[in-house]
Amino acid sequence: MLGRVLCTVLFVGALPSPAGASQGHISVILLGATGDLAKKYLWQGLFQLYMDQVSSGHSFTFHGAALAAQEPGQRLMFDVLKKLSCPPDEPPNRCAVLKDQFLKLSQYHQLKTAENYTALSREIESLLRQEGLKEAGRIFYFSVPPFAYTEIAQHISSSCRPPAGAWLRVVLEKPFGHDLESAQQLAAQLAGFFREEEMYRVDHYLGKQAVAHILPFRDQNRQFLDPIWNRHHVERVEVVLKETVDAKGRTSFYEQYGVIRDVLQNHLTEALLFLIMELPASVSSAQEVLQHKLQALQSLWGLERSSAVLGQYQAYDSQVQEELQEAPGYVSTTPTFAGVLIHSDSPRWEGVPFLLTSGKALDERVGYARVLFKNRAYCPQSGTLREAGHSQCKPKQIIFYFGHGALGTPAVLVSRNLFQPAMPRDSWKEAEARSDLHIFGQPLSDFYMYSPVKERDAYSVLISNIYHGRKDFFITTENLLASWAFWTPLLDSTSRQPPRLYPGGVENQQLLDFEMVGGGLAFTLAEPAELLSPRGQMPSDFRAIQSKFRQSPLVSAWAEELISRLASDMEEAAVSSVARSGQFHLALSGGSSPVGLFQRLARHHYGFPWQHTHVWLVDERCVPLSHGQSNFQGLQRHLLQHVRVPYLNIHPMPVQLNQRLCVEEDGGARLYAKDIQALVANASFDLVLLGVGTDGHTASLFPRSQSGLEGAPGVVLTESPVKPHQRMSLSLPLINRARQVFVLVLGKGKHDITTLLSRVGREPSKWPISGVSPSSGQLVWYVDYEALLG
Amino acid sequence: MLGRVLCTVLFVGALPSPAGASQGHISVILLGATGDLAKKYLWQGLFQLYMDQVSSGHSFTFHGAALAAQEPGQRLMFDVLKKLSCPPDEPPNRCAVLKDQFLKLSQYHQLKTAENYTALSREIESLLRQEGLKEAGRIFYFSVPPFAYTEIAQHISSSCRPPAGAWLRVVLEKPFGHDLESAQQLAAQLAGFFREEEMYRVDHYLGKQAVAHILPFRDQNRQFLDPIWNRHHVERVEVVLKETVDAKGRTSFYEQYGVIRDVLQNHLTEALLFLIMELPASVSSAQEVLQHKLQALQSLWGLERSSAVLGQYQAYDSQVQEELQEAPGYVSTTPTFAGVLIHSDSPRWEGVPFLLTSGKALDERVGYARVLFKNRAYCPQSGTLREAGHSQCKPKQIIFYFGHGALGTPAVLVSRNLFQPAMPRDSWKEAEARSDLHIFGQPLSDFYMYSPVKERDAYSVLISNIYHGRKDFFITTENLLASWAFWTPLLDSTSRQPPRLYPGGVENQQLLDFEMVGGGLAFTLAEPAELLSPRGQMPSDFRAIQSKFRQSPLVSAWAEELISRLASDMEEAAVSSVARSGQFHLALSGGSSPVGLFQRLARHHYGFPWQHTHVWLVDERCVPLSHGQSNFQGLQRHLLQHVRVPYLNIHPMPVQLNQRLCVEEDGGARLYAKDIQALVANASFDLVLLGVGTDGHTASLFPRSQSGLEGAPGVVLTESPVKPHQRMSLSLPLINRARQVFVLVLGKGKHDITTLLSRVGREPSKWPISGVSPSSGQLVWYVDYEALLG
Repeated sequence: MLGRVLCTVLFVGALPSPAGASQGHISVILLGATGDLAKKYLWQGLFQLYMDQVSSGHSFTFHGAALAAQEPGQRLMFDVLKKLSCPPDEPPNRCAVLKDQFLKLSQYHQLKTAENYTALSREIESLLRQEGLKEAGRIFYFSVPPFAYTEIAQHISSSCRPPAGAWLRVVLEKPFGHDLESAQQLAAQLAGFFREEEMYRVDHYLGKQAVAHILPFRDQNRQFLDPIWNRHHVERVEVVLKETVDAKGRTSFYEQYGVIRDVLQNHLTEALLFLIMELPASVSSAQEVLQHKLQALQSLWGLERSSAVLGQYQAYDSQVQEELQEAPGYVSTTPTFAGVLIHSDSPRWEGVPFLLTSGKALDERVGYARVLFKNRAYCPQSGTLREAGHSQCKPKQIIFYFGHGALGTPAVLVSRNLFQPAMPRDSWKEAEARSDLHIFGQPLSDFYMYSPVKERDAYSVLISNIYHGRKDFFITTENLLASWAFWTPLLDSTSRQPPRLYPGGVENQQLLDFEMVGGGLAFTLAEPAELLSPRGQMPSDFRAIQSKFRQSPLVSAWAEELISRLASDMEEAAVSSVARSGQFHLALSGGSSPVGLFQRLARHHYGFPWQHTHVWLVDERCVPLSHGQSNFQGLQRHLLQHVRVPYLNIHPMPVQLNQRLCVEEDGGARLYAKDIQALVANASFDLVLLGVGTDGHTASLFPRSQSGLEGAPGVVLTESPVKPHQRMSLSLPLINRARQVFVLVLGKGKHDITTLLSRVGREPSKWPISGVSPSSGQLVWYVDYEALLG
Repeated sequence: MLGRVLCTVLFVGALPSPAGASQGHISVILLGATGDLAKKYLWQGLFQLYMDQVSSGHSFTFHGAALAAQEPGQRLMFDVLKKLSCPPDEPPNRCAVLKDQFLKLSQYHQLKTAENYTALSREIESLLRQEGLKEAGRIFYFSVPPFAYTEIAQHISSSCRPPAGAWLRVVLEKPFGHDLESAQQLAAQLAGFFREEEMYRVDHYLGKQAVAHILPFRDQNRQFLDPIWNRHHVERVEVVLKETVDAKGRTSFYEQYGVIRDVLQNHLTEALLFLIMELPASVSSAQEVLQHKLQALQSLWGLERSSAVLGQYQAYDSQVQEELQEAPGYVSTTPTFAGVLIHSDSPRWEGVPFLLTSGKALDERVGYARVLFKNRAYCPQSGTLREAGHSQCKPKQIIFYFGHGALGTPAVLVSRNLFQPAMPRDSWKEAEARSDLHIFGQPLSDFYMYSPVKERDAYSVLISNIYHGRKDFFITTENLLASWAFWTPLLDSTSRQPPRLYPGGVENQQLLDFEMVGGGLAFTLAEPAELLSPRGQMPSDFRAIQSKFRQSPLVSAWAEELISRLASDMEEAAVSSVARSGQFHLALSGGSSPVGLFQRLARHHYGFPWQHTHVWLVDERCVPLSHGQSNFQGLQRHLLQHVRVPYLNIHPMPVQLNQRLCVEEDGGARLYAKDIQALVANASFDLVLLGVGTDGHTASLFPRSQSGLEGAPGVVLTESPVKPHQRMSLSLPLINRARQVFVLVLGKGKHDITTLLSRVGREPSKWPISGVSPSSGQLVWYVDYEALLG
């Protein structure tokens, strides 16, 4: 029967050109053919594909598949198919004919065992042989829960691949893991069965017309956007998805994911990337697009706990208790609202805040990406006397409106005082301004506004792109893992944090307003007491504690608070030193522990007197300064390139002289000591920052080596037990001349040495750190809970 | 007669305390007692002083003086005095009595000759002897044209100084010169007669209540302002004075001054300085205030022609023709409207635009200083659903409203979503919000608004401050000269520029709207053709011309355009080099010519790929790198500290090794050559920037010395005929390996050598610059009109 239809199709009215049949046959296999997503979007999308491509020269068959047996499965599926609707712009006659054909081209299959898959493959092959058709390719659409992915993938790969010369495309639906590790696992498993180019990971936001048009818009309006699409002109970028619904009925899923995994990690991040990525020379090159998108993702600053504000609507806990049968006292910290502040390191966007916001149980359903430009104009004539329209002093913005909300349609809006955009006439039409509507505080008449000529569902857009093999509409493995690598630290650091409770709906008022404060976000209003439910004390409620360690002051907290406290203490030391002497001589250690500190200093401490600070190295590895392992490189990358220390105030250790590294006769250590004596009063640094190794080393002073532990205060060459072995280091006597010494100890890995150090006396030849004891200065230990408590 | 009054005064009702009379006597001499300013403000201000201070313990006499003879002068003066009004808050009886006394204490004097001054002095002394009063001091108020200043000053100084132990205060009214040079002359003349502390230069804006309250406001609200009064929170600062009147009737003055000298150099600059200066620990210390104000002024970036937009109302030309009897074809370039963009170098304000705007014949009369804060909030609930009031998403601003305009009163306004300010209750009261009024697009109800309890005229405030010796309400010589030093370059560079014509009044519409563009300002709309009057071609209409010089391309223009063109060409070279090779090796010369270029690169060329640029020195003086004469220091100060060149990409010349300078054996030149060979492919710089000395030297290659002119491409030590003699320099053969060499020649002083060079051939030993001829690269000459045309 199917055979006859295939041929019939080729002769329906004036539609298909028989010659086109040479393009070959495409089999679409929809796995989970009777599930919700399939019912709601996918079959309709496949029908749309069929209507669009019936005369493309390809022939099609559609194979719904599920675990259910043939008879009930088939009935269920055809119940869905019969309800397929004709789009309003399609002539009803043509549509009716095509729907009839579509039904005839569709079949149900029970796909459960390897044999089922083999049988399906054979069936396709024999049909095509029978019809004399070449196989072009097979599309497998996974509309099944992720736990089923591996098994299905295995079956497809081993028993249902198309023959050589025909392509395989497997379409995967999120979630793709719930953090970096699980995403890596899933990706590794899939990579065992499919090649990268065979996989199409769906983020349906990429099929939304307003999102899909971001790049074409940027491309077609380059002449207007080139001068202004950067940090000098853009004030902020917002990507927002507000929902009115809550998680009721879906808490078993939601409780595991929360708003960041559900919406921000994927939809909002993707839309943001389209806005901020460097525009490739050709936006039609999927490879270039994907590469630039990945680069944009990699340019984002790491997120910290303070990067986000999190909320949870008040009824959520009881919904979870009811649906998941949790005890009445159960407290969920899953956020249903999040605002996240993101920054990019790229020269184009440095300093421009990107705000991603999403939540359930809010006042309206709307989604948009909005680029707000700086107001750079001054208008001498007062506003009331002017004709409104194009005034340069009105806000300037470009909005990609995903849909719903006041407009009720996808749209692209450009402030009239910016420029009249070029829009493709066949797909976008200028919309009539409804005079009663305001958007972001402005009447619609302030905008050029365009809406799609034909509204298309995201899935139908995506299915068309799968058909065309347009991979830039999908998430590559690299992109996915980079995205999880970006989001996972925030998920980890906020997992213990109780979200702010909000009533839901229009009652939220200003409760969820948030602000950029000191490099992060914070809710504007203090949390009203009456909304606080009784909760147990959370670990994050601990504040930095102070005590003594080895007879010296100890500051302890979770790593993030500890670093923030240390950075503040360093700024205070710097400010008071500059007030006292006009200068601040700071000696910094290398290694991984201080990286977070450097970043915090660079990003949060605008008041740090860098202009008057001299930066010295505590120790250095004997590698060229430009080498990735050089302590100086780390310092440069994470701190110096972000702040303004005068060139001559930066003092790298001269480990390379006469084109060789740390040769005694070249006198590098002596040279550095001389520089210190010449510039640092009394050779007494204002502040020395040290770390501690698991073997008790500090600076590059190692156990069982006398070098640098005693004698005159100076600079020494030492030998490390680990590579690179050769080091240069301040000596212990020089360190002990400092006015202040701060020791930073982070992480579980340091717990043993911390415990040991709390017990032993001064034995620098065993544990060099135990010899740190400023003769007339102050020593402070900054030890995080993990190092302190294990 | 006067004597009796003096004593009578001391016993009027309950007013003065006789014991207070021990404070001594003050004589106020108003020079120009019958002039406009005296009639309008000064006598009323003196009467107010008398009312306020009658019971202070000081006794007073008031001496009006002018050139007119005794009889007519006296009559004129008393006609003014009789009209003195009583302030509304003064009990009418008390005022009537005091006015009567004030008239009795006032006398007219003809002051013309030295004898007149001597006579006045004797008269005061004998009166006081007679009354047994000690002399406290004399106030001379100069309400006379500036050409009369010197003579009067001489007379006062030589014939009318108070006796030892009593103070002299001379009060001077602007204009204080019309540019830096004339201001210096005037200041030098006055300094011959008066000590700095004796001079009170009036800028009456400092007496306006809203201006005078800026510093107290900042002081009393430190806790709120400290965190936000900086570049991270402030979006822009505007200081604006709009007038509806034009210059009719005053063109003889105005044609010489224009809006910048009339308003911006003084009033608006002073108000701006109060906003941006560092707040002294004590705002009541006049010395600290003046010092911080001066520092703020000195932190401002130099103005360039592109810093300003200038306009002239259309009727101005014909008014000038009529009033000054100029020929009908006369064209004035005097601006009657100006918008100026100012930036500060201070860490607090770096990058924040300060906009100063003033004009005549505008749509309204109003003056204000406005600090607009960045919007750092995101409000998830849509505006329509929220209670208005304090929303964090509304604009945040603080406005010091000088007067007139919609409010019609001086005021201080603070957005309610910022904070409720502390205001002194005795002088400022909370004003009622008139619900119908909007200011800067917001209803008045969005602000905390305060107005003065008692409105006081600026002159009465200033006269009171003269009496109290509060010097921070006046312009010091240092401040005045710094202000002229700041404004004069703009006045010079715009003096030939035809201002945009505007119709005047409400017809101006958007014609005067301007925008910040590429570091400067530009009118938003193109000038409509119908408004252009026929004008002769102005020198500024010349654009960069291109031609040949010594067989190489020549670019020539006025210095500012030339530098802007050179900077753009350098950016282009850098961008294409980075695209080609990933790097850009740039060798820069020192000296004064490139300073403007460095500044332009730092401030206007955000697209310059500094991250991939290596900066080398063309030559260096043998002084420590931290020395003010070091080329590297100049480069650091004007360029490197403002851009982000990675530390290891910066290559100062190693002129100091082993703690000594340019010693052959230390091998600094060899070291630099080795670095170049190691890093610069083929030792071929991508771009070398050279200058030319009046003797034809370039880099540090001097005539009549063979060093560096021939031989292998390398780095050499040379001898300069001028100090410091020792130099290090790239050699000519090395320079000639470059891909591009740009030679910058600026100023009249270079005209002779330019002319010479245009004629001679290649004779490097006579004129080293003539040996510059890249073997396979390109040479371009950038010569300004002054160097080219003399």
